[in-house]
Amino acid sequence: TSNQTPNSFSKFLPAVCFIWQIAMIILFGIFVRYNEESDTHWIEHKKTKRNLSDIENDFYYRYPSFQDVHVMIFVGFGFLMTFLKRYSFGAVGFNFLIAAFGIQWALLMQGWFHSFGTGKILIAVENLINADFCVGSCLIAYGAVLGKVSPVQLLVMTLCGVTLFAIDEFIILNAKDAGGSMSIHTFGACYGLAISWVLYRPDLNQSKRLLGSVYHSDVFAMIGTLFLWLFWPSFNSAICSHGDGQHRAAINTYLALASTVLTSVAISSLSKDKGKLDMVHIQNSTLAGGVAVGTAAEFMLMPYGALIVGFCCGIISTLGYVYVTPFLEKNLKIQDTCGINNLHCMPGIIGGIVGAISAAGATEYVYGSEGLAAMFPMVPRLQGGHQAAGLCVAIVFGIGGGIAVGTVLKLPIWGDPADDNCFDDEVYWELPEDEESHSVILEYNNHMRNKHQDV
Amino acid sequence: TSNQTPNSFSKFLPAVCFIWQIAMIILFGIFVRYNEESDTHWIEHKKTKRNLSDIENDFYYRYPSFQDVHVMIFVGFGFLMTFLKRYSFGAVGFNFLIAAFGIQWALLMQGWFHSFGTGKILIAVENLINADFCVGSCLIAYGAVLGKVSPVQLLVMTLCGVTLFAIDEFIILNAKDAGGSMSIHTFGACYGLAISWVLYRPDLNQSKRLLGSVYHSDVFAMIGTLFLWLFWPSFNSAICSHGDGQHRAAINTYLALASTVLTSVAISSLSKDKGKLDMVHIQNSTLAGGVAVGTAAEFMLMPYGALIVGFCCGIISTLGYVYVTPFLEKNLKIQDTCGINNLHCMPGIIGGIVGAISAAGATEYVYGSEGLAAMFPMVPRLQGGHQAAGLCVAIVFGIGGGIAVGTVLKLPIWGDPADDNCFDDEVYWELPEDEESHSVILEYNNHMRNKHQDV
Amino acid sequence: TSNQTPNSFSKFLPAVCFIWQIAMIILFGIFVRYNEESDTHWIEHKKTKRNLSDIENDFYYRYPSFQDVHVMIFVGFGFLMTFLKRYSFGAVGFNFLIAAFGIQWALLMQGWFHSFGTGKILIAVENLINADFCVGSCLIAYGAVLGKVSPVQLLVMTLCGVTLFAIDEFIILNAKDAGGSMSIHTFGACYGLAISWVLYRPDLNQSKRLLGSVYHSDVFAMIGTLFLWLFWPSFNSAICSHGDGQHRAAINTYLALASTVLTSVAISSLSKDKGKLDMVHIQNSTLAGGVAVGTAAEFMLMPYGALIVGFCCGIISTLGYVYVTPFLEKNLKIQDTCGINNLHCMPGIIGGIVGAISAAGATEYVYGSEGLAAMFPMVPRLQGGHQAAGLCVAIVFGIGGGIAVGTVLKLPIWGDPADDNCFDDEVYWELPEDEESHSVILEYNNHMRNKHQDV
Repeated sequence: TSNQTPNSFSKFLPAVCFIWQIAMIILFGIFVRYNEESDTHWIEHKKTKRNLSDIENDFYYRYPSFQDVHVMIFVGFGFLMTFLKRYSFGAVGFNFLIAAFGIQWALLMQGWFHSFGTGKILIAVENLINADFCVGSCLIAYGAVLGKVSPVQLLVMTLCGVTLFAIDEFIILNAKDAGGSMSIHTFGACYGLAISWVLYRPDLNQSKRLLGSVYHSDVFAMIGTLFLWLFWPSFNSAICSHGDGQHRAAINTYLALASTVLTSVAISSLSKDKGKLDMVHIQNSTLAGGVAVGTAAEFMLMPYGALIVGFCCGIISTLGYVYVTPFLEKNLKIQDTCGINNLHCMPGIIGGIVGAISAAGATEYVYGSEGLAAMFPMVPRLQGGHQAAGLCVAIVFGIGGGIAVGTVLKLPIWGDPADDNCFDDEVYWELPEDEESHSVILEYNNHMRNKHQDV
Repeated sequence: TSNQTPNSFSKFLPAVCFIWQIAMIILFGIFVRYNEESDTHWIEHKKTKRNLSDIENDFYYRYPSFQDVHVMIFVGFGFLMTFLKRYSFGAVGFNFLIAAFGIQWALLMQGWFHSFGTGKILIAVENLINADFCVGSCLIAYGAVLGKVSPVQLLVMTLCGVTLFAIDEFIILNAKDAGGSMSIHTFGACYGLAISWVLYRPDLNQSKRLLGSVYHSDVFAMIGTLFLWLFWPSFNSAICSHGDGQHRAAINTYLALASTVLTSVAISSLSKDKGKLDMVHIQNSTLAGGVAVGTAAEFMLMPYGALIVGFCCGIISTLGYVYVTPFLEKNLKIQDTCGINNLHCMPGIIGGIVGAISAAGATEYVYGSEGLAAMFPMVPRLQGGHQAAGLCVAIVFGIGGGIAVGTVLKLPIWGDPADDNCFDDEVYWELPEDEESHSVILEYNNHMRNKHQDV
Repeated sequence: TSNQTPNSFSKFLPAVCFIWQIAMIILFGIFVRYNEESDTHWIEHKKTKRNLSDIENDFYYRYPSFQDVHVMIFVGFGFLMTFLKRYSFGAVGFNFLIAAFGIQWALLMQGWFHSFGTGKILIAVENLINADFCVGSCLIAYGAVLGKVSPVQLLVMTLCGVTLFAIDEFIILNAKDAGGSMSIHTFGACYGLAISWVLYRPDLNQSKRLLGSVYHSDVFAMIGTLFLWLFWPSFNSAICSHGDGQHRAAINTYLALASTVLTSVAISSLSKDKGKLDMVHIQNSTLAGGVAVGTAAEFMLMPYGALIVGFCCGIISTLGYVYVTPFLEKNLKIQDTCGINNLHCMPGIIGGIVGAISAAGATEYVYGSEGLAAMFPMVPRLQGGHQAAGLCVAIVFGIGGGIAVGTVLKLPIWGDPADDNCFDDEVYWELPEDEESHSVILEYNNHMRNKHQDV
């Protein structure tokens, strides 16, 4: 197995950061320009195009959603993973690093696929949102391997993940997937779980002492949870078509998430002694409704439909933490630090299925004839088929890509932590002195207590 | 008194969550649909209505404010209450639970009152804002009983609170109350204080050891304070009429809050030995200006008027923490954990009075004749009377409803904590092991110190 | 030197808060009114002006950016400075106080300069953004003296800083500076460093025990970092002209910041033993790209241009923390608690230079003839000269003003902490009891350990 001393790490990370960032600059220099709405030629453009005014620039109708999504990516995902007692720096810091790299690479990859032939990638605020989305899938994957890999491994995971995402997205182009249940959540979770499966550590219990939270780290994680929960309506509606589509997606997501909270609490309480609640469930499962309503958020799911989706996913996700995560670890040798299977994989697949069914069942009665044509590129039954196909492609890409990338990451060159050193910021971070003295005191106290007991 | 062992809690909470959520799904199925701006029929609607374009959908002119309000409800209120050393999980977690339930119930209750006769509740982003507002009043009430009630009691409080809010709001329909000084803050605070009065615990000092903060819990609470403070301009302007009304409400709130900070700091410093500052005041009283300017935010209060309102409320609110909270506990037997009397009740009443006076004194000279007609449904003097009546109705509903609900909550069936167990997450949450060992160390140290002193 | 006992503080702070706030009310009463878009006369105004509709009110095209900037000022700056182990209250609390005062004074100062002759200051959302910007410069200056001054000194710093800012801004009016690389960052940092130079404390190492972080204070600081990083695109675009300008500024900032993260991580890792990362760098240097792209954000910098700016500033800023900060302290006697030289001064100057060069090099080929005229008030070469002049003025104002204000603050009347009492919340805040008992335990443990070693 890959228990390198982290010394090989010392020059590797800076080298990767520098070289990749220089590559980004060169590629951006060759390929990336402003589009007509973010270029100074807009002043001429708006005259030619039915006399647009400045306030009709798409910036004003996408930017607030973009900023909400941006908060989710950096604060939401970052803080959600700070729950471990000694890996908060790594959680929020490496999340920051890989997202900052990933959004640049995503702008290129997605740009290339959407601008075949023209030669230039023309960017605007919608591209920024899509780049954030794309990176989101890699941050999900990070959740599965949190504390067990080096930052260089994470950067490689992100490079490959973004690439796979962009290809996957291009293939399933005809499947509607506004909130990315399939392309972001299912793909990202499958990708992360497959990598974690390849990188399986049989002796991980040597780090068991660090695999848990302390009181305040759980409160930090709630910052992540709440900002994800809050801004999820923006996430699912950010790239919907303007007007009723974006409006409806926000409403559906708001409702699905509200419903999820109640069933997550219920199952959490049922699963524990004396009906107590488990912070892990509150931090994670309460978000499952947002994942599952992603694909169909834009559809005429109806308010009660959104509530039902949330209801089911709160149950399934919490049960996942109670039963599926231990099962995966024992029987399938998948170690899933954050339980992304429960928060992203299962709810994402449900979301894909809900999307396929509700697309296949769409009627002119519900949508209106013009509304139906505007919503779906194909007739409902065909659309449903495409949705189902899209889900399968996402799963295949996730698992296949994850196994391939995991195999590369298994090479003993990446400076990942030893089995007894996982979930420990000490490996990659200068820690404040106080922490060390604090642990000295803990040890000292243990020593004294034992002595005391001897007396 | 109601010192149940929390065992009865173990099946009660899941049952309530499940049953109520299923009820929500059924009621939403019967009553709730999308309105014309969030339905696919928008495509036809916009043609018939003076050729609207997609970007004229109301979504774009309410949604940014909605998201700010949403942050306040979940992060703002939730983290503001994390200041207690051992009740941060309960603060942020139960806030999450009851808000997620409350917004669903509020959509129904408010919808029924606004759609008499049509049979269906048609929702859009404005309804989401109103639901958040409605729940806000229940979260205020939670502040009074923080740490002393069970989550089931909180859910009952929310169910009844939302119901009362919707009725109250319907009755005072002709009173303008954009930021809810009366309907949200005064009502919510009276409701919470009345419940706390009924649930008075004479032996609460048995939990005194937990009724305080630690250094980092105070910093967590500042997250709540700042997000409330920051987004309050959005809160007070979120449902104002478009154009100058919304614009002015944001400006007035911005100014009132700035002013409040300075007088809160001043009084806090005067109230303490050596002029030191008290975090409780900084966390809470700095927000009083936002409460008090709620009703009149939309009016031509003038920038200096907003500053004066903030000035006074910073003083009154901080003095409230110094003098009124202890007085209420000793003399009126009202135990108010978060001091909602000082942050919501007194400033809310002031806000109602400011609203009544400034409505009664509105003139064509200041507003312009068209502006005056657009702002108030009635002539100024009559409007002022309606405002004053609205304030009284909010107080009566709050106190009356609170006493009734409190009486129900006093029944010994709800699994609330014992007197020596209040303010303790241990009762309802699985706590991380480290915390326990931490307290072991504390005890051990105390023991050793005593021994050392004996020597 | 000025080692006053903080007793003089006890009545001074309340007096300043009260008197200044009353002065604000009087001055606002005389000078400040709503402008035509936030006044009820808007209803008439919009008819006369080509039949505007309510949703064309500028509120809707500035307010989302305003709220993002507001988060940066209060949460971003406030939490970024919470990294010290025992000064988190002071960081977030005094930041709150001085910002709340400063925005009021900024509305007046900036208003007077922009409304010469009309007699009244007419405010709208754009003024609120400018006031936040202005205060930003003073919060930057706070970073240099964090933990070493009293709140009264901070208020004086803010009063004078805002005044200088407004004059500076008026003088360099013809220089474009959308994100304030020059007027906010360079000026603010020079101002703070000059003050810190005058207030140099040779015996500051007496407080050395408190000049560092603990694990959770570093996580708190990341809240500040991330919200600053996230919303920086809004900061740099908030007051750009509508349409492509605002759009482009957001894109450029997004890219510059992404690039900065990678080079900051790289240099941080290179600078430390075993390639570990330093939280100070991650918290601060990752933001340098946003500072440096401020002036040119609106220009046709091109996406790769933004990446290059970010690339260089991540390197320079991190090297600054490693080499320049110690150098400044030893050789120039400038004690810079937060390292604002590295985050604001050097990147700000770079930003000014980038702005001057890219303005001077602007061509019709790139901008289009109409675009070029719309962007710059002067021909490119002249514009470049004005930009360079603007940078020089900002530096001169910062250093000159800082020396003058620092000299006043050196008077032994302000109640600043003693040399062995710096970076300690104890001086100005009532601290929770637990903290004290915690330090008792630490001392006790040290005592016991020594005893144990003797045995």
